[in-house]
Amino acid sequence: MGGDHGTRVTVPAALEFLEREEEASIILVGLVDSIEQELHRLRASTSDRLSIKSASEVVAMDDQPAQALRGKRNSSMRVAADLVKEQVADACVSAGNTGALMAISRFVLKMLPGIERPAIASFLPTLNGRVCVLDLGANINCTAEHLLQFAVMGTCLVSAVEGVERPKIGLLNIGEEEIKGNDVVKDTAELLRASDLNFHGNVEGTDIYMGSTDVIVCDGFVGNVALKTSEGLAQMLAQYLREEFGRNVFTKFCGMLALPVINHFRKRVDPRRYNGASLLGLRGIVVKSHGAADSYAFGFAIKRAYEEARHGMLTSIGEQMTANQQKAA
Amino acid sequence: MGGDHGTRVTVPAALEFLEREEEASIILVGLVDSIEQELHRLRASTSDRLSIKSASEVVAMDDQPAQALRGKRNSSMRVAADLVKEQVADACVSAGNTGALMAISRFVLKMLPGIERPAIASFLPTLNGRVCVLDLGANINCTAEHLLQFAVMGTCLVSAVEGVERPKIGLLNIGEEEIKGNDVVKDTAELLRASDLNFHGNVEGTDIYMGSTDVIVCDGFVGNVALKTSEGLAQMLAQYLREEFGRNVFTKFCGMLALPVINHFRKRVDPRRYNGASLLGLRGIVVKSHGAADSYAFGFAIKRAYEEARHGMLTSIGEQMTANQQKAA
Repeated sequence: MGGDHGTRVTVPAALEFLEREEEASIILVGLVDSIEQELHRLRASTSDRLSIKSASEVVAMDDQPAQALRGKRNSSMRVAADLVKEQVADACVSAGNTGALMAISRFVLKMLPGIERPAIASFLPTLNGRVCVLDLGANINCTAEHLLQFAVMGTCLVSAVEGVERPKIGLLNIGEEEIKGNDVVKDTAELLRASDLNFHGNVEGTDIYMGSTDVIVCDGFVGNVALKTSEGLAQMLAQYLREEFGRNVFTKFCGMLALPVINHFRKRVDPRRYNGASLLGLRGIVVKSHGAADSYAFGFAIKRAYEEARHGMLTSIGEQMTANQQKAA
Repeated sequence: MGGDHGTRVTVPAALEFLEREEEASIILVGLVDSIEQELHRLRASTSDRLSIKSASEVVAMDDQPAQALRGKRNSSMRVAADLVKEQVADACVSAGNTGALMAISRFVLKMLPGIERPAIASFLPTLNGRVCVLDLGANINCTAEHLLQFAVMGTCLVSAVEGVERPKIGLLNIGEEEIKGNDVVKDTAELLRASDLNFHGNVEGTDIYMGSTDVIVCDGFVGNVALKTSEGLAQMLAQYLREEFGRNVFTKFCGMLALPVINHFRKRVDPRRYNGASLLGLRGIVVKSHGAADSYAFGFAIKRAYEEARHGMLTSIGEQMTANQQKAA
């Protein structure tokens, strides 16, 4: 129930989702008054598919993870994670503080066997579809084994969400002739080649958006920089376009005429359609929505969690890990 | 004289540059026949400002750096670097193989005192101007001291080329709450704070294009991924725009009307205007043009080299290194 806009975003998104997905049901976790008020505003009420679970505390966007974990034992994040642990819920979605969500989820749900580190995975648009990139910031110093585990998790996520049978995996590297990546990247390539996964080989930054592979694996520092750099570039280009079309009466006229085309373009690259970062490696499905998401964007995060659960992503990660370990042994 | 298009690009670019910059003079280094043929085609000839220096070998785009360095002692790269070393030329510009250019330049020119590693620096457009980012791929594993040296070099490059007196430096980091960067980044921040430089603080990938600082420092792996990711995203967006405007008769008509606006936009973000990566840290000025550059783009690489030389960038790096060392002592 977190995020910058709270129930004003999460409750309408939940209602819309239930309308679209007739087999889904949702538990709204948070301050009961606030949730009921929002339901009332939207002329909606609880039902056999929509219930409320009270959580009396709120994790603030600037709370330290440790503080959120130990100091707020009745936060909506904690209660939601508990529901997943107790198998009352199949997945948890939050727009709150990433660090706190990660700490609480890890503490409550624990890691899947064979996975040492959780990773943050998200999808980005490409020339021919979309690509899953991980890790996007949970882990800074990764070993080759960690990166291999990320590849397993990315494979299972893409299989679950996209229905791709053997997703192609790329290992993010740099292309300068003399120095083909650092030792960790080289070792990871060897592990991937020896694994059961569909390893395509090294890819460069350009390949992310060219759609060369279905999954791209990197450490969290590099992944986070790639993601944020993309956000910055997109913002700059959008601003430039606005400036160009706003230059004078003639350009404004052109802009008006081109509006349907520009809008279609914007819809295609709308970041809201890619909202939802999966916290992978846990014994439960947890999806983090962007804090500033509106209800349209938050709906995509709910959808992600729903599909991960419906297609048994966790079981699939477990099986793939076992297959890899047997192959390595 | 290298690159994908050879003298067909470099010779016209040199001629155009000499027309614009009346105090500049250029030595064309390479296969004499090929250069003369191109001059002939363009109805131009050598003069007191344009001469030819023969180099009988060509470094291929796929030559290994060591092979280019030891096996081709009369390559245009080697001869050009020698001219810089002998102070016959103030700078060297090449569109050839990056690895070979780096190896040859380093071998011939040696490093500046106090600089342990060369770095590759380039400019990118921002909301309010441009930003210098380094390293873009010369160094994968960097210490905090290396990153401090990159900051010194970036400062001097921006001062020389942009005329900014105390360029603001940002240290590329990630923004997740729990983990503010790895140890190297943390140590670098401390060194930068203690230095004589204008350290703005940590920045995120988004800040590259927001123009938050004049210089952004990072290791070569991260910098290369950020650069290549940007190239990929820009390519994808351009392709999407083409597709949207090419969808049907109506959208094509809109596209035609919006063409002047779109062209103005494209000019603003034209990567050719940012062509030219400076190889910094050497006792000489070396600029690497994109291999696929046309003569318009190659002209920007020549201009970069010219301005670095004209504004005494090398002396300025030397002075700044001494100032920092004195402050640290």
